[in-house]
Amino acid sequence: MVPGSEDPYANLREQLHRAYLLKTTLGLLDWDQQVNLPAGSAALRSQQSALLATLHHEAAVSSRLREALEAAGRSTPGTDDDRAAVVRLARIDYERATRLTPAFVREKTEHQNRSYHAWARARETNDFGSFAPFLERTLEFAREEAVLQGWRERPYDYHIDLHDPGLDAATVESLFNRLKGPLLELAGKLLGAPIDIDDTLFHGFPAHDQERFALRVTEKLGFDYRRGRLDRSLHPFCSGDGHDTRMTTRFDPDNPLDSLFSAIHETGHGLYGQGLPLDEAATPLGEPVGMAIHESQSRLWENQVGRGRPFWRYFSPLYRETFPEQLRHIPDEELYRAINRVSLNPIRVDSDEVTYNLHILLRFELEKALFDGRIQVNELPREWNRLSESLIGVKPKNDAEGVLQDIHWSGGAFGYFPSYTLGNMIAAQLWYRVREEIPALEEGFARGNFQPLLQWLRDNIHRHGRRYDTGELVKRVTGNPISPDFLLRYLEERYLPLHR
Amino acid sequence: MVPGSEDPYANLREQLHRAYLLKTTLGLLDWDQQVNLPAGSAALRSQQSALLATLHHEAAVSSRLREALEAAGRSTPGTDDDRAAVVRLARIDYERATRLTPAFVREKTEHQNRSYHAWARARETNDFGSFAPFLERTLEFAREEAVLQGWRERPYDYHIDLHDPGLDAATVESLFNRLKGPLLELAGKLLGAPIDIDDTLFHGFPAHDQERFALRVTEKLGFDYRRGRLDRSLHPFCSGDGHDTRMTTRFDPDNPLDSLFSAIHETGHGLYGQGLPLDEAATPLGEPVGMAIHESQSRLWENQVGRGRPFWRYFSPLYRETFPEQLRHIPDEELYRAINRVSLNPIRVDSDEVTYNLHILLRFELEKALFDGRIQVNELPREWNRLSESLIGVKPKNDAEGVLQDIHWSGGAFGYFPSYTLGNMIAAQLWYRVREEIPALEEGFARGNFQPLLQWLRDNIHRHGRRYDTGELVKRVTGNPISPDFLLRYLEERYLPLHR
Repeated sequence: MVPGSEDPYANLREQLHRAYLLKTTLGLLDWDQQVNLPAGSAALRSQQSALLATLHHEAAVSSRLREALEAAGRSTPGTDDDRAAVVRLARIDYERATRLTPAFVREKTEHQNRSYHAWARARETNDFGSFAPFLERTLEFAREEAVLQGWRERPYDYHIDLHDPGLDAATVESLFNRLKGPLLELAGKLLGAPIDIDDTLFHGFPAHDQERFALRVTEKLGFDYRRGRLDRSLHPFCSGDGHDTRMTTRFDPDNPLDSLFSAIHETGHGLYGQGLPLDEAATPLGEPVGMAIHESQSRLWENQVGRGRPFWRYFSPLYRETFPEQLRHIPDEELYRAINRVSLNPIRVDSDEVTYNLHILLRFELEKALFDGRIQVNELPREWNRLSESLIGVKPKNDAEGVLQDIHWSGGAFGYFPSYTLGNMIAAQLWYRVREEIPALEEGFARGNFQPLLQWLRDNIHRHGRRYDTGELVKRVTGNPISPDFLLRYLEERYLPLHR
Repeated sequence: MVPGSEDPYANLREQLHRAYLLKTTLGLLDWDQQVNLPAGSAALRSQQSALLATLHHEAAVSSRLREALEAAGRSTPGTDDDRAAVVRLARIDYERATRLTPAFVREKTEHQNRSYHAWARARETNDFGSFAPFLERTLEFAREEAVLQGWRERPYDYHIDLHDPGLDAATVESLFNRLKGPLLELAGKLLGAPIDIDDTLFHGFPAHDQERFALRVTEKLGFDYRRGRLDRSLHPFCSGDGHDTRMTTRFDPDNPLDSLFSAIHETGHGLYGQGLPLDEAATPLGEPVGMAIHESQSRLWENQVGRGRPFWRYFSPLYRETFPEQLRHIPDEELYRAINRVSLNPIRVDSDEVTYNLHILLRFELEKALFDGRIQVNELPREWNRLSESLIGVKPKNDAEGVLQDIHWSGGAFGYFPSYTLGNMIAAQLWYRVREEIPALEEGFARGNFQPLLQWLRDNIHRHGRRYDTGELVKRVTGNPISPDFLLRYLEERYLPLHR
């Protein structure tokens, strides 16, 4: 890193690198907060994070970066495709960052902090009313941000685009409308022929042994523990990037499948992170496209791979080796049925991969209605419960189990929920595509060979970073635009034979 | 935090707070590196740390801080003792920081990073020659720093003062000379009547149970786990401050006493950190005096308290509850003798509290000789081995067990080693003082009551922060200047009766 380097492109990379170091440091503060931070140390951490966020924003809007972008823009176009892509995308980021004033960023961050704590308290005490004023202000910030970014007329589109570049509410709505009918029909069939499992059989799986098995599985799938970790946290997540990938899960001795599939899910995110070009880590070519693509990776590994028979043909003996006593009375077919059981649940994160999407349709409806002004924040609990009954078929016992169940809105993450079902759609699309290209893929899984899938994802998804937007990338890899058809086909093929 | 606040003192606190947030974030990066960082993620971490160190240095030398110091200096003297102390000490820090150019700080930091890795490799391969050029450069940096700070004629004094404000090499030498003769005589007596323990008895203490017991002990001593943690690392350490205190230890199933006493030692550091005034955390009144005082706290809890009979009267039953099988064949008296065994060891950190001080005398001799130019870096192994034989009575098998055993010099921490024995002296001085003031102190320990000692340390040591320098504080609390007499008396009283 030579300051004021002669090569304009090298100089741009240097400026981006500074912002990257601040962003990843901020990421570590957040990771530590969720994994390690003592309860009484939260005040210091929030001050540290606020300062690092400010410093990152300063780096992202600095005049040095602007000058570097201008100089690189004059010298690179046409000379090299990668460089031109970096300049183009970095300019978008720079412009986005400069449209937000430092005061706006600070006030929004401070509000989100308070709002998060208000949500956590409200969920604990089952009191939506105490959280509502915070959510109202959060919604105002979301609208203000859209205005500052030049999306005054389409604030919800802005937030969708922020999570999944190139998508908008109309596109999502059209996809979801095509999904909805057939999905409800399928869910009806499956729920009408429920799988009966004795849950008390899944009992007494010590956390330490679960952890050993999770490490074994995730390493076998291809996660590189030389530059990553698996820790424990209240809510599983994956943060960091290919230089230092931090995944978490949780271990409940009486719910070992939840822990394991959380770990596999986060491994999908982690493999994406580790597959992005390392030497572009600080540039947009080393960043993920967006949340739908990210979720497509986690869902593909968790569901298409991890819930499949070939996966369990390989891992069942090893699982039984780790838990000989606990699994003695659960034959393989019973285990497989437990892994793929569809049932009604008011909680999104506890839902199976069929009804999960209904939870997302509900949230998308409510977000649209909030941004359109068709409903007000204080009407959310009523609307949530109404939709939960009509769409999912289950009425939450209370707001903690209903409108307060998710963290997203407390942090202002509107437009994020659709990514989950878009990710499911894309995962299924990729799944059919990769099996066309590698017919023996699943035979390999049964022998413990997951490398061909990982390599295919590396070549087709990971290595591109943010070069293509969400829809472009899917079209490029699968030959089709994003579509619900593959998800529906996959769900029918996997779940109908099991529920008879 | 109101920028450009009207109150000059509030403005000064704000500027100090910014530097404090950067320093504690840097501290977390370092902690994470030692506790969590995957082996392949070191490159990113060293870049993050370098940037944070630069930002911290910028904050510590900023013109805003200078102006705040000047304004506060004009308005506070005489008005309030605390404020005047903060301004006085913060000015010293500011002046020290400004005398180091950013280029010097960056080059030194980068060199230290490389030097650390060279040392680690050299220790592994037992090859001092490959480390020597790095150490030579480190020594140059140490001299250059002393010159920049205005201590050209007394570079070693500068480094001693940096670790223990108010002390210099002549003072340390005079104290060590008074200690040396009687200590060698005592060590000779003790080693002539060795305690014979069957080490294979200490076998099969599972790490998890050791951890449970360590948490129980350290919490009982007063460590507040609501704002602190105990983790595992290769080398035990304590970092952070009262807002978030992070201690580590290591657990060897066949060496449970090492793990336990490391944990108690770090708890001494942690209790000091947690006892410093929280609302002054960002000012010098919330900082420790220096390393000798810090070590006096860790040693007091580890040795005077933790290796004493009253402590074990309380904890032995609980220890046996945790390890009933393992301790079945070790009666209490045998356990006590194992805890207080004096024996020769070439490794400082594995030594008992009597011969430990001989290791420090050796290092002090060598540091003096290096700074005086009486020996050269390439002569260190020979001189080390010679002194080890003549002072300690043991010849290292190789350099890994000799001159390469400690990390300190690899990071340029000259003048640090004396703090350990100074800390031992001060711990003994405090020990005699507190028992005069609280005669029933040890009776309390036997009942599990450690609060009176902690409160006394809070009142007499912790609450002052950096207000007094090392010698002043000792004089103030004990009525005497720092002296080796108390340490000698304590060692004789504890160890002579055991070695007959």
